[in-house]
Amino acid sequence: MSALPPAYSHLRARFREAALLRSTEGVLGWDQETGMPAKAVAWRAGQMSYLSGQVHRLTTAPEVGAWLAACEAQGTASGAAAVNLRGWRRDYDRETKLPAELVEEFSLTTSAGMHAWAAARKASDFAAFQPVLEKLVRLCQEKADHLGWTSCRYDALMDIYEPGARSADIGALFADLGPRIAAMIGPAVEKAKSQPADLLAGHYPIAAQQAFNREVAEAIGFDFEAGRIDTTTHPFCTGLGPGDTRLTTRYDEADFFSSLYGVLHEAGHGLYDQGLPADEWGLPAGEAVSLGIHESQSRLWENHIGGSDAFWRHWHPRASHHFAGLNAFTPEQVAAAARQVSPSFIRVEADEVTYDQHIILRFQLERSLINGDLAVRDVPEAWNAGFRELLGLTVPDDARGCLQDIHWSMGSLGYFCTYSLGNLNASQLMRAARGAMPSLDADLERGVYQNLLAWLRTHIHSAGRSLDPQDLMVQATGGPTRAEYHLDYLKDKFL
Amino acid sequence: MSALPPAYSHLRARFREAALLRSTEGVLGWDQETGMPAKAVAWRAGQMSYLSGQVHRLTTAPEVGAWLAACEAQGTASGAAAVNLRGWRRDYDRETKLPAELVEEFSLTTSAGMHAWAAARKASDFAAFQPVLEKLVRLCQEKADHLGWTSCRYDALMDIYEPGARSADIGALFADLGPRIAAMIGPAVEKAKSQPADLLAGHYPIAAQQAFNREVAEAIGFDFEAGRIDTTTHPFCTGLGPGDTRLTTRYDEADFFSSLYGVLHEAGHGLYDQGLPADEWGLPAGEAVSLGIHESQSRLWENHIGGSDAFWRHWHPRASHHFAGLNAFTPEQVAAAARQVSPSFIRVEADEVTYDQHIILRFQLERSLINGDLAVRDVPEAWNAGFRELLGLTVPDDARGCLQDIHWSMGSLGYFCTYSLGNLNASQLMRAARGAMPSLDADLERGVYQNLLAWLRTHIHSAGRSLDPQDLMVQATGGPTRAEYHLDYLKDKFL
Repeated sequence: MSALPPAYSHLRARFREAALLRSTEGVLGWDQETGMPAKAVAWRAGQMSYLSGQVHRLTTAPEVGAWLAACEAQGTASGAAAVNLRGWRRDYDRETKLPAELVEEFSLTTSAGMHAWAAARKASDFAAFQPVLEKLVRLCQEKADHLGWTSCRYDALMDIYEPGARSADIGALFADLGPRIAAMIGPAVEKAKSQPADLLAGHYPIAAQQAFNREVAEAIGFDFEAGRIDTTTHPFCTGLGPGDTRLTTRYDEADFFSSLYGVLHEAGHGLYDQGLPADEWGLPAGEAVSLGIHESQSRLWENHIGGSDAFWRHWHPRASHHFAGLNAFTPEQVAAAARQVSPSFIRVEADEVTYDQHIILRFQLERSLINGDLAVRDVPEAWNAGFRELLGLTVPDDARGCLQDIHWSMGSLGYFCTYSLGNLNASQLMRAARGAMPSLDADLERGVYQNLLAWLRTHIHSAGRSLDPQDLMVQATGGPTRAEYHLDYLKDKFL
Repeated sequence: MSALPPAYSHLRARFREAALLRSTEGVLGWDQETGMPAKAVAWRAGQMSYLSGQVHRLTTAPEVGAWLAACEAQGTASGAAAVNLRGWRRDYDRETKLPAELVEEFSLTTSAGMHAWAAARKASDFAAFQPVLEKLVRLCQEKADHLGWTSCRYDALMDIYEPGARSADIGALFADLGPRIAAMIGPAVEKAKSQPADLLAGHYPIAAQQAFNREVAEAIGFDFEAGRIDTTTHPFCTGLGPGDTRLTTRYDEADFFSSLYGVLHEAGHGLYDQGLPADEWGLPAGEAVSLGIHESQSRLWENHIGGSDAFWRHWHPRASHHFAGLNAFTPEQVAAAARQVSPSFIRVEADEVTYDQHIILRFQLERSLINGDLAVRDVPEAWNAGFRELLGLTVPDDARGCLQDIHWSMGSLGYFCTYSLGNLNASQLMRAARGAMPSLDADLERGVYQNLLAWLRTHIHSAGRSLDPQDLMVQATGGPTRAEYHLDYLKDKFL
C-alpha cells in the first residue's frame, strides 16, 4: 500500500464519504418501507433526493477524474486498491458519460412513465402506454450509445446490472434453456398433480412463522447481531453498513411457505452482504459484483437448500413444534407441497420451472427493441407469440401480458436477464460445491450449513468486485455460466 | 415577503438544508435506539458524526454571517421571516462564539467524563470522578464566558436550553417552591398510605397495554398517520420531519402505569411537535421554543390529564376491557394507585410531589459551581446537606447521591431546571386553560380533549420560537412562570 500515490487516499476518502451517504439513504429507504408514517412521505423524498444528489456530486466531480488518472499513470496498485481503482473508473465513466440533459429527460420520462403504465395496466390498454414506452426506448438507445458498445447496443444496458454481459452469450444460453424447459413443463405439471395443492391448508400464526423463520435463518448462518428481519409488502434485503444487513418478508397465515421462502431468499442475499470484506464496505472491493451473482445466492438458499427433501427431513420436527398439525405429514410430503408447477401469466407468481420462460421472453423483446428490430407498437403481438411458444398459454389481455411489469416504465431495460442468470449460477455453484465437498449432502441432511457457507464465502462473497461475474464463475466452478446444470437440477427435482 | 432581500432566501435554503440533514441524523438516532443490530454501532457513529459535522459547517460558514447582516441592515422582515432571522442570529452567534479548540477539548473531556462517571458511580467513589468534573466545570465556565453573561455566569449555560432564563428569577421561584413542597411531603405520604401500593398488582400483557395506550394517545389527539410508538429502554419523543413524530415507551407486565404514563408524557411532547408550523419545520418559526415549555406539554398530559380522577372515570371501562380484573376497582381507586408519594434518593424514580426537590438541589449546586462559590471536592457534602433539607433523607452513599445522574459527565450543566419549569408551566397553563374554557372540566370528564389541545395549539404550539419562553407564558397565561399554581395543584391532588 505504501507505493500508492496520495491520489489514492483522496479517492478512498471521497468514496468512503459517498458510502456513508448512500448507506444513510439506505436507512431512510428501509424506514420508509418498514413503518414510516404516511404523512412523512414528502419530507422523506426531499431527504433522499438531497442525499443522492450529494453522492452524485461527490463521485462525479472533476477531481475524481484527475485522481483516477494519477493512480492509473503510476500503475502500482494491487489487491484491494487495484479492485477499487478498476471499479471507481468503471462507475466514474458510466456516471460522467451521460449528458446532464439526458439524465434529466430520462428522469422526467420515467416519472411520467410510471403513471402512464399504472393507468394503462389498470385499463389493459397498451396504446395508452405506447407513446411513453417509445420515448423510453429511444432514451435507452441514446443512453447505450453514450455508454458505448461494440457488437450489440443492448449490451451497454445489460452491463449496468451485469458487468461484461453480452447479448450473444446470454442469447445462446437462453436459446438452449427455453425449449428444454418448454419440453419439461408438461411432465412436471403431471408429476406435481400427484400431490394435492392444498395438502397443508391450515392456520399458521405469524408469531410461529417468525420463530421458525428465525431458527432457519440462524442455522444457515445469518448473523442477527448484524441484521434483522422486518415485515413489508414486497420482501427485500438491504445492506446499511458493515454489520447491518436487513431482510424483510411478508406473512400469510394460511401459508407458511410464503414467509419462509421469502426469508430464505432474502437471507441468501443477506449472507452475501454479510460476507463482503467489511474493511472495504461500500468500495468496489467490498461490494457485490452483479445482480446475477447476487440472485444466485438468494436462489441457492431458497430453492436448492430450502426446497429440498433433505431440508424438510432435518427441519420437520422443528416446523412441527411451531406449526401444530404438520407432523401429520412426512417431510417428503411437506417438501413436495412446496414444489407446485403450473404455467401462469404473471411472472412474480411463477413456479420455479416456468419462471425462466418469463425472463427469456423479456430478454428477447428488450434486445429487439433496443437494437431496433422490433417496434414498440408490435410489442403485444410479439409478447403473445413468444408466450405461446415458451409457456404454451394464450395471453388473455395485455394487463396479464406485456403490461404486467413496472420495469419498462422505469426505464430499467437490461435488468430482467439477471434473474435467470441467478438461477443458472445457483445450480452451477451447487454442482461445484458438491464436487468440492463430497460430504455436502450428508451435511444438508443433518442441517449443517457452515461448510457450504464457507465455500460460498471463499469463492463468491469475499471476492467483492475483484473479478467480472463470468470470470468469478470460471474461478469458482471451472467454467462460465451454462444452462445444463440448471436443467439437470430441475429434472431431478421436478420429474 | 416581497420586501425581503435575496440574502433571506439564501439563509432559508441553507437552514432548510441543515434541517434535512439534522432530521436525517434524527432517523439514524431513532433507528439506533429502536432496533439497530449491535454490530452496526461503529458505522452508525461514523454516519452520525459526519452529518452533524456537515450541519455545523453549513450553519456556521462565514456567508451565513454576511447574509444575516444584510437582512438585519435592511430590517424589513416580519412574521415568520422575522422569527427565523432572530433565531438564526441567536444560534449563529452561539455556534461561532466558541473557539474550535474549546469545542474540541469539551468533546474529548465529556467522552472521558462519561467513562469516569460510570466507573465512579459503580464504585460509589466521588474522588474518582472529581478531577474530570473539575475540568468540566472549568470548561463550562470558559464556555459561559465566551457566550457572554451580565449578572450571573450560570445564566449563559441555562440560556442554551431555556432562552432568556436568569438565575435570579429561577432562584427566587425555587426558593419559594422548595420549602413549601418540603412541608407538604409528610402529609402527602400519610394520605397516599391510605391506598395500598400493590392494589393493582397483576399481569398486564404487553399487547393489551399497547392497544390501550394507542387508544388513549389517539384520543388526546396524537396523529398516528404522522407518528408511531416504539419500544426502548428509555422513553423519548423525536421529531423527524413534518408529519413524522415518534414516541417510545417501555413495558412492565406487572404495571401498566409504566408504559401508559410514558406514552402520555411522550405524546405530550409529540403533540407539541405535531402542532409546530409545518411550513417552517426545522427553522426557528417552526421549532420548539425551549425545554421548559416542551416539558410543560409532556407533564400536562401525563399528570394533569392522565393522573386525574376524571381521566379514570372516563377510561375505566376501556381499561377494564383491555385489562381483565381492573373492573374490581373504582375509577378513583385506579387514579389513587397512580398517586403514590414516597421520598427517595433517585431522581428518575421520584414521585410527582418530591420530584422538584431533586431539581432544586441540582440547580443550587450547579449555580454555585459555575459561579465559583462551591468547590467540586465539596459537592458530596453540599449535596447531602441539601438533600436532608429538601427531602428530609440522609443520603447513604454518593452512588445514590451526587453521582446518580449522567448529565454532569456530559458537561450538560444548566439543563436540570427545565424539568421543574415544565412542572410549573404545566400547572400555570392548565389554570389559564380552565379560566378560558369554563367547560374544560366537563370535557375532561367525558374524555373530550380537542378543546384543550386547540387551546395549546393556539397559545403554545403554533408560536414556534416567535417569543422567548417567559414572554410566551405571559401571553398565554397573563404572567411569567410562578410557583403558586403548581403548589395549588399539588395540594388539590395529594392532600
